[in-house]
Amino acid sequence: MSTVVNAAALEAEFARAILAASRNVTPAAQETACRHIIDFAGVALAGSVHPRVRLAAGTLAGPLSGGTAGGRLIGSGERTELDTAVMLNAMAGHIHDFDDDEVLLSIAHTTVPVMAAAWTLADALGASGRQVVAAYICGVETMMRLGQIVNPRHYRDGWHSSATLGVFGAAVAAAILQGLDEEALLHALRFATSMSAGIRASFGSDGKALQLGLAARNGIVAARVARAGLRCSAGTLFGEQGYAAMYGGSAQDPAAAIRAFGAPSGLLEPGLTIKRYPCCTATHTAVDAVLGLMREHDIEADRIAALEVDVGVDLPPILIYDRPRSGLEGKFSMKYCVAAAARYGRLGIAEFEDDRVAEAGVQAFMDRVDIRVDHATPRPAVGLADHAKVTLRLADGNVLQRQYAHPSGSRQRPFTADQLQEKFLACATDCLPRAQARDTWTRLLALPATADFRTIAQACVAA
Amino acid sequence: MSTVVNAAALEAEFARAILAASRNVTPAAQETACRHIIDFAGVALAGSVHPRVRLAAGTLAGPLSGGTAGGRLIGSGERTELDTAVMLNAMAGHIHDFDDDEVLLSIAHTTVPVMAAAWTLADALGASGRQVVAAYICGVETMMRLGQIVNPRHYRDGWHSSATLGVFGAAVAAAILQGLDEEALLHALRFATSMSAGIRASFGSDGKALQLGLAARNGIVAARVARAGLRCSAGTLFGEQGYAAMYGGSAQDPAAAIRAFGAPSGLLEPGLTIKRYPCCTATHTAVDAVLGLMREHDIEADRIAALEVDVGVDLPPILIYDRPRSGLEGKFSMKYCVAAAARYGRLGIAEFEDDRVAEAGVQAFMDRVDIRVDHATPRPAVGLADHAKVTLRLADGNVLQRQYAHPSGSRQRPFTADQLQEKFLACATDCLPRAQARDTWTRLLALPATADFRTIAQACVAA
Repeated sequence: MSTVVNAAALEAEFARAILAASRNVTPAAQETACRHIIDFAGVALAGSVHPRVRLAAGTLAGPLSGGTAGGRLIGSGERTELDTAVMLNAMAGHIHDFDDDEVLLSIAHTTVPVMAAAWTLADALGASGRQVVAAYICGVETMMRLGQIVNPRHYRDGWHSSATLGVFGAAVAAAILQGLDEEALLHALRFATSMSAGIRASFGSDGKALQLGLAARNGIVAARVARAGLRCSAGTLFGEQGYAAMYGGSAQDPAAAIRAFGAPSGLLEPGLTIKRYPCCTATHTAVDAVLGLMREHDIEADRIAALEVDVGVDLPPILIYDRPRSGLEGKFSMKYCVAAAARYGRLGIAEFEDDRVAEAGVQAFMDRVDIRVDHATPRPAVGLADHAKVTLRLADGNVLQRQYAHPSGSRQRPFTADQLQEKFLACATDCLPRAQARDTWTRLLALPATADFRTIAQACVAA
Repeated sequence: MSTVVNAAALEAEFARAILAASRNVTPAAQETACRHIIDFAGVALAGSVHPRVRLAAGTLAGPLSGGTAGGRLIGSGERTELDTAVMLNAMAGHIHDFDDDEVLLSIAHTTVPVMAAAWTLADALGASGRQVVAAYICGVETMMRLGQIVNPRHYRDGWHSSATLGVFGAAVAAAILQGLDEEALLHALRFATSMSAGIRASFGSDGKALQLGLAARNGIVAARVARAGLRCSAGTLFGEQGYAAMYGGSAQDPAAAIRAFGAPSGLLEPGLTIKRYPCCTATHTAVDAVLGLMREHDIEADRIAALEVDVGVDLPPILIYDRPRSGLEGKFSMKYCVAAAARYGRLGIAEFEDDRVAEAGVQAFMDRVDIRVDHATPRPAVGLADHAKVTLRLADGNVLQRQYAHPSGSRQRPFTADQLQEKFLACATDCLPRAQARDTWTRLLALPATADFRTIAQACVAA
């Protein structure tokens, strides 16, 4: 019994730390949060018109589900049942794999599950911008601290952390926005352990975005039932057969991770990476190197005789497609990503449409690409080894080489405000007219001062 | 890649076996299915008025979720979003822990997740009784065959199989009712791997019934998105980091389990146990023995000086409450279950109300109960060792002893039709007037000949 008692105390400490952090948002954390919330709005707008998301919406928010309801979809403005709207907004946020992520603690796409929950709920409740920011910060940090406890084994074992941890992030964001007290928040966290699911084996298919949708939706459910007075067992998080033990073992010290909550905010340290390309982050350092070398040396693809990429040991099990047959598979193919970057000279949403992947020229170019595991560079103690070294062997015999330890968009190589705006507008105009997209950008910049979040949500509905 | 190719072939074989079984329902399987569907209706009616289920319904089907919709709640007849209705109907079916289960292959409450999905969907679609029976049979068998692959390690590791396997059962039932073809059914199964969650650490709290609700709801989602055309990766079930590997290892041979599908129907062999008492099945053989000895020897509780129970090695990790403080905890306390049976002379829904657990007499009686692990009787190769031996030491020095290998209500010691009706009416009248409950019983008996399932669903709405 003493194990359960200790676990219960630790679980309560976790809930207390989250509530404390929600009341202590620093200006620096708020500023960083806004960048990520804007990035979420952009990628979700682009995703909202994606055919797979429209298919899901057509069935889940369709006639069987019934008429008017409390949730609203980003982009289309369609109304449906709240939890379903959360799910569809999360799918929209992740379908392009263009949303930010964090590779040291959570090894997860942290923003989408948290913001899909916070966004949809704040839109339903008319919350303030400050409340959204606090909910977002606490949700993301929850994913990081739980990730610190179960990772890296959790992710390496095959779990899709964005979903398995995302449900906790969404639950916390929903709990903060709904004003849960410490007791209810504690049980929201415990209920989230009943809902943590998602495996990496689904990568390269609709299952990946769906898993983030489920995580976001389930997080809302966890917070709602806890708020209504349902209660879950002590020990479900940190007990002998609780979440930490079941989903990665208990090698890490949960108490240390919980003590680190918000000090400093995980948004600042280690920070999230805003993606430059709509594909797995693990491809980014290599793509940066290919595009950088080609631009600086003014190289055309047909001058490249061979393209070699040396990657960390963690990458091959993530980048599972050697010869992708679809855009979704291409996002998890290092060979395709570097080949497409070389062939098309850019790597945006369009380069992951199915016909771009099938195109004869890029398929032929893939024969010139060689992916090798770099055993020389040591595996980091935490997180993934996502450095990459690219070697271009040119037809004229010249050899060019570049190595990056961190992708552009990371804390180490952050986007400028212009780069952030450029990405936002490129994404948002997939769904909104350009003038509206520009107006929406301006409104998003003023998020912390926004009295009623519904004005921002309205700005993300195509006029 | 060959592992994934083999896994993909096996996954397709699984889908084919399910569809074939749905077209080959034998009279024996149909008859057994009806008994379990009736039992489901009874326990769900009793659960529909449970305060915790009403709390969940108040929030999940409340104002935030919006107005008219396609799902209907058993008992109250309230309408809400379809997937939410599935969830609440499953919670109602499981809240008393009075629904049937199967301890050899799935180690799960097989009927509730499957029937909550089938019931709610058939009610929305106006399916025929025969379709409901076929969907039910295939859903239950799916849970058993997947359970055969991942168990007993899966359950012993701490997974709540009723939920983790239930999502597959619900997905299959929904797929059959919606007429999915082989390709779509295959992807429904694969999507279910993205949603499989639930841990035993939540036992004794609202989390347990909630997990069955989530499983049933997610199963519907898996079938719906597959039907809409979304697709999931090959290998998510049987690939290297697919479901079977992630949730229990791959010691068992998936191919053998799939070949066994429907031959004979798992409903007939090994069969499910219809519960006589609303508590963990693992307590039933002991409670049978206590009540049997006391009745046959006309013994009052105060004549018992000591009550000893020898149980199989698998039981203590399930029956985790030595001193339960609530009715929900009491359901997972061997000490409470045998003490309450002795003290109250019966063990029904009322004996798990919080004040009955707290009652001084039964608490005092628990001091006279001793639970011991029986290491002499060998652990079975599959399933749980749920036999129990009870020894009553009477104040007058007499000693009475009885041992059961299987609980009453199991295939080995089945309910008579009268016993089934008695349990149904006892449960249903928690919600329906007695005359209506009797009429509902008659309608349920005619399920296979029912042209429109909505007439049966309507009979389970309190007039």
